[in-house]
Amino acid sequence: MHNGDALPSAVTVIEVGPRDGFQMEKTFIPTAAKVAVINEMLEAGLREIEVTSFVSPRAVPQLADAAEVLAAIDRPEGAMFTALVPNAKGAERAVAARIGAMITILSASETHNRKNVNRAVEDSLKGCEAIVEIAGQAGIPVHGAIATAFGCPFEGEIAFHRIVSIAKRYATLGIHRVGLGDTTGMATPRLVRERVRALQDALPDISITLHFHNTRGVGLVNVMAGLDEGITRYDSSIAGLGGCPFAAGATGNICTEDLIFMLDECGIETGIDLERLIGVANHVQEIIGRSLPGQLMKAGPRLRTHQTEAVATAHG
Amino acid sequence: MHNGDALPSAVTVIEVGPRDGFQMEKTFIPTAAKVAVINEMLEAGLREIEVTSFVSPRAVPQLADAAEVLAAIDRPEGAMFTALVPNAKGAERAVAARIGAMITILSASETHNRKNVNRAVEDSLKGCEAIVEIAGQAGIPVHGAIATAFGCPFEGEIAFHRIVSIAKRYATLGIHRVGLGDTTGMATPRLVRERVRALQDALPDISITLHFHNTRGVGLVNVMAGLDEGITRYDSSIAGLGGCPFAAGATGNICTEDLIFMLDECGIETGIDLERLIGVANHVQEIIGRSLPGQLMKAGPRLRTHQTEAVATAHG
Repeated sequence: MHNGDALPSAVTVIEVGPRDGFQMEKTFIPTAAKVAVINEMLEAGLREIEVTSFVSPRAVPQLADAAEVLAAIDRPEGAMFTALVPNAKGAERAVAARIGAMITILSASETHNRKNVNRAVEDSLKGCEAIVEIAGQAGIPVHGAIATAFGCPFEGEIAFHRIVSIAKRYATLGIHRVGLGDTTGMATPRLVRERVRALQDALPDISITLHFHNTRGVGLVNVMAGLDEGITRYDSSIAGLGGCPFAAGATGNICTEDLIFMLDECGIETGIDLERLIGVANHVQEIIGRSLPGQLMKAGPRLRTHQTEAVATAHG
Repeated sequence: MHNGDALPSAVTVIEVGPRDGFQMEKTFIPTAAKVAVINEMLEAGLREIEVTSFVSPRAVPQLADAAEVLAAIDRPEGAMFTALVPNAKGAERAVAARIGAMITILSASETHNRKNVNRAVEDSLKGCEAIVEIAGQAGIPVHGAIATAFGCPFEGEIAFHRIVSIAKRYATLGIHRVGLGDTTGMATPRLVRERVRALQDALPDISITLHFHNTRGVGLVNVMAGLDEGITRYDSSIAGLGGCPFAAGATGNICTEDLIFMLDECGIETGIDLERLIGVANHVQEIIGRSLPGQLMKAGPRLRTHQTEAVATAHG
């Protein structure tokens, strides 16, 4: 462990379900339902939420109501709302919608970037310049996400210096908060350690957000590896909403309630009420209409005891 | 971390699916299918398998074929087959079936023990004496399992000195290999650390096996905590077979393939071929006839890359 026995005392959990989860749903979720869920998340104590994406409504009809969602949600003190912004037009829409921070995304893998946005990584980086300029004029910060930061489903391994070099380019543009996206669940504790250390060595002022998927079952193990390195910002999705585009039936984002449970049990402050958050997860599952991957929502809190007369057990 | 950066270099993964998983299935699984699955596990490199239980065939009809299974499976060199043994009668059946080691089980929680075997813990301990005697005469080792070792669904928290005191009683009986069972998924990294250290302090010669459930999503996180403490024996179940008797739809045992993936990626030797094991998991899923919790079996190995023309992705 990098930091001896000391894990961070507090962590920011960034809820990405309303963007990264909802965008994968084929049936349109009514704007009022989206707003209700986001407001419930705020009531449960979440303070940073990726609420939507200002992509083309034709490309992602599910998020065509980005501006309406941002206009309707509660805005309690300390709440930060972010959205994905793919280009200058999106940035202008985001400014008009009073976004708290814009998130640009590009892939560490050339092949994945071309598949995802039909451009070379270099062209994506150039596209960021326009976004940064529009955001800067409006006084809005920009965060830079790097997809396939732990491996690419087309190219395989991604060298860590590739991540460092993109983060340096982001820094040149004035983007110092960088997210490492484990797009298809290829992260491992060793890769987390290696990439975090390399980034911190190259860019001492960088603020790193880790975005893990549970596609291969080790999403929360990777969070522990990040905590060991002192990282205090983690993306997750309510109820584990959002799949993996490369494996039918496979899990996507790590689940927010399960993450909060683990952090609680490690004595790490998040400011989030787990019981209330489980309620939100159940509400989201009702809206989506199928069973979602979250475990806490099925098992309940750790110390919710049963009546002794209620259950017959197997041996062991 | 207890051991600095040093994780164990090798780990024994004990497959419990044929007992702990199959026993929960309502439809009888043909003996030949059980034998085929166990043989495939051996071919994939597993060398310690909890194959069945010598409980009353009336209580658990699914495992009424215990002796037939043990008579039919391959017995490659180095393979160790274990079975749950609840009483003297079971011990005699196990000896006749050429079991490699017997597993006794009792619960750290009085309430859970009464629900599970309708006896006080003290009476369960007394029952172990007869098992140990029969096993000893046959030259067969006995392992002692402690259920609800990290919390009880009826009583809530279980004090760690309770675990230590049961382990000491086991030691008095000549049982020095002890398993801590996380029966309903209440283990946390802190509890793992605390219990392992207390046991090792009280009983320096103890061999500890950790048996985690993924009921609250942190099963593999708890394995990492065990590895940090130098523990080298872990139970798991192929495909994550086996549920939680206290929460419908909740996950039970951690999944063997997912565990092997994590250990592989941490550079820890297990002697198991992950690709072959995924094949076994898929076979088990076919036999069971419903989707099982394992993640690797859905996502595939980490570096199985896709053809670039095959997939369209969402943004991020």
